[in-house]
Amino acid sequence: MTDERTKFLLPEDQLPTHWYNLTPDLPTAPPPPLNPATKQPAGPQDLAAIFPQALIEQEMSTERWTPIPDEVREVYRLWRPSPLYRARRFEQALGTKARIYFKYEGASPVGSHKPNSAVAQAYFNKQAGIKRLCTETGAGQWGAALSFACQVFGLRCDVWQVRSSYETKPYRRIQMETFGGHVTPSPSDGTEIGRQLREKFPDTPGSLGMAISEAIEVAAGDPEANYALGSVLNHVALHQSVIGLEALAQLELAGERLPDHLFACAGGGSNLAGLAFPFLHRNLAEGANVHVRACEPDAAPSLTKGEYRYDFGDAGGFTPLLKMFTLGADFVPAAVHAGGLRYHGMSPLVSAAYDQKLLDAVAIKQREAFASGVLFARAEGIIPASESNHAIAGAVEHLKAAEDDGEGQVILIGISGNGQLDLPAYADFLSGEMIDA
Amino acid sequence: MTDERTKFLLPEDQLPTHWYNLTPDLPTAPPPPLNPATKQPAGPQDLAAIFPQALIEQEMSTERWTPIPDEVREVYRLWRPSPLYRARRFEQALGTKARIYFKYEGASPVGSHKPNSAVAQAYFNKQAGIKRLCTETGAGQWGAALSFACQVFGLRCDVWQVRSSYETKPYRRIQMETFGGHVTPSPSDGTEIGRQLREKFPDTPGSLGMAISEAIEVAAGDPEANYALGSVLNHVALHQSVIGLEALAQLELAGERLPDHLFACAGGGSNLAGLAFPFLHRNLAEGANVHVRACEPDAAPSLTKGEYRYDFGDAGGFTPLLKMFTLGADFVPAAVHAGGLRYHGMSPLVSAAYDQKLLDAVAIKQREAFASGVLFARAEGIIPASESNHAIAGAVEHLKAAEDDGEGQVILIGISGNGQLDLPAYADFLSGEMIDA
Repeated sequence: MTDERTKFLLPEDQLPTHWYNLTPDLPTAPPPPLNPATKQPAGPQDLAAIFPQALIEQEMSTERWTPIPDEVREVYRLWRPSPLYRARRFEQALGTKARIYFKYEGASPVGSHKPNSAVAQAYFNKQAGIKRLCTETGAGQWGAALSFACQVFGLRCDVWQVRSSYETKPYRRIQMETFGGHVTPSPSDGTEIGRQLREKFPDTPGSLGMAISEAIEVAAGDPEANYALGSVLNHVALHQSVIGLEALAQLELAGERLPDHLFACAGGGSNLAGLAFPFLHRNLAEGANVHVRACEPDAAPSLTKGEYRYDFGDAGGFTPLLKMFTLGADFVPAAVHAGGLRYHGMSPLVSAAYDQKLLDAVAIKQREAFASGVLFARAEGIIPASESNHAIAGAVEHLKAAEDDGEGQVILIGISGNGQLDLPAYADFLSGEMIDA
Repeated sequence: MTDERTKFLLPEDQLPTHWYNLTPDLPTAPPPPLNPATKQPAGPQDLAAIFPQALIEQEMSTERWTPIPDEVREVYRLWRPSPLYRARRFEQALGTKARIYFKYEGASPVGSHKPNSAVAQAYFNKQAGIKRLCTETGAGQWGAALSFACQVFGLRCDVWQVRSSYETKPYRRIQMETFGGHVTPSPSDGTEIGRQLREKFPDTPGSLGMAISEAIEVAAGDPEANYALGSVLNHVALHQSVIGLEALAQLELAGERLPDHLFACAGGGSNLAGLAFPFLHRNLAEGANVHVRACEPDAAPSLTKGEYRYDFGDAGGFTPLLKMFTLGADFVPAAVHAGGLRYHGMSPLVSAAYDQKLLDAVAIKQREAFASGVLFARAEGIIPASESNHAIAGAVEHLKAAEDDGEGQVILIGISGNGQLDLPAYADFLSGEMIDA
């Protein structure tokens, strides 16, 4: 056995004490959300029907650091700090001389990074006297995370799940129900917007935008209920910053310098923001030079093919207008796309960072993503989530083009989750049936 | 945040250096396996057609400690040492004053304890020049573990999977294939014994005993192939002892004394042996008093309802005769049983320990097992494997009967795996459709 470690584990008393907010470090302030009726910047009152005051303050905050409540850290301790690994066997499999690390969020209660924000959101809603949270979910990771978080704090959790996922991927629904969540396929007949959508698109497989509209409608109509979003918004990016803050501490523990290149998958942007923003802070505040690359699916390429403009966050037009890279609020990715990351837009903070050239982006085809994921699984003994495969593929693509076999490069990959419940997509890939949309 | 930790993580340089063997500590030597033709004790030559010399020596060893090869420890480091947790939220949910710990094997490459032996078996076969391993699997955990282990050491892996699992639980098959394994439903038409079984029982759902027979037939007929078994045998119990050895070190790290009561699920016995035998060593060699309880399913109750006699390990009668608690080599558990642990017999070492009153046993009905599992999941954020639910239920049953709300008791539960791929059984339980066989 060599003296060199494989895992860099922080003791739980070194859990971050504060979340990090990119906003004050941005060279140009991010454009504010707009009230769709007045086209004026949205104020706290525009959000008060569906969010508690604490989260609205976080959404609008220009503070760099926000304390993490003890009650939230107590729950984080069930699985955090999450491990940072040196991917020695994957390095060997690639034949690279680069040093590859990966930050692994797959050992959380639902197998992804989503509980980092779910637990925080459930806590602040509980503090505000809310009894019930409504949300949307696609594949089901966010819905499962919020179901677990609501269970912890004694709230009811209602989840509208994109109908195609509800029907074809029962495991995540069961996971939500095991954690006590109530799940409805979307669009449903239980909401006004759901009935409208079903009438207009009778055969629709559903979309995140549609499910968001339904959850917001119900939350806005029940004074004891609020809405919770698992990605996109500033307060979600804030909560997810524990990922990157831990990774910084773990690289130091490993005696490693800051990475040259950081790869993270990007759908709505919460995982990318969570891992990368604390590194952008080092770039912006301390003159570091960490190159950050967002790895998005070719089937929903909001950064690389979208427009940077104001758009709704949902299909029904219930949300404030957000300035973001978007494919249009009615965008529905091709049904053959198996890789998650199906949202039409990109987090306004990630969008602003991209617009200000603080990070770049690449679109990955799904067969390339899964080929990299299988290589990684066989080397490291971890089957990555479909989403995470995009980040791995981004790194592989970069290293294949590297001079000197990557000698001296330090690479950090975000593995946002494990792929246990994505195995049918692996079967499609292994059998040759997966196609690039 | 309290000062009291939730997780007790050993640094990887404290991975055990040796495996522990119960045999020399047993008050009475365990009865040897017998050659079925001569009824004389089986010698190394009886096993040489299907096992490498190193594993045969481990199988027959009376040494207390066996060094773990560096190459095996290198692979273990991908996920070991596995965490020991203090289950504070579960204690609160139960309203007990006992201190409950659990040793968690669910973060391994396949989500269970099985790779602990798979990696060792693949390594020793590779050292012996073997090119291919043949094995059986039920739900698929062992097959996935061996697929991964063979991938690491460059061996081909052929898995015969119990037909009912192959057909109804595709996720595990895909997991095996993602790790590079080749999977065939059993009984199959590709072996002599498989054809006989299919003729005799055309509608059979298959059984572990049948699948073992097929794998042994192929391994015995190919000079470059060997057979690998995931439970039952002494060398498997040996490899699994890393679980209990780590747990002992972790309890010390936690400043905790030895547990009063240890609960582990038991099918073939490898998980129970792995966790409990190092604690029995403390009892036998150092006068400690750790009470060990095997928690087996009511649907396959080999310890509590079986006979202690010589029996075959497989349905076809290819193995040596093993002295064990057995329900008969042709036993097939009721199809409604969802909880794993379907083997007809019990590890000869576990059987000997039970016969010598070194541990006791309880049979758990599956609804009780899942009720405890759901309670645990909602408290701790970990959905346990179906098998592990039996251990949790055993502990819950014990604590419900405890005086003084369990005040002062220290409890250790073995969580042998996570339940991500057992979610359909959770759905049956939650919907009320699960029945006790």
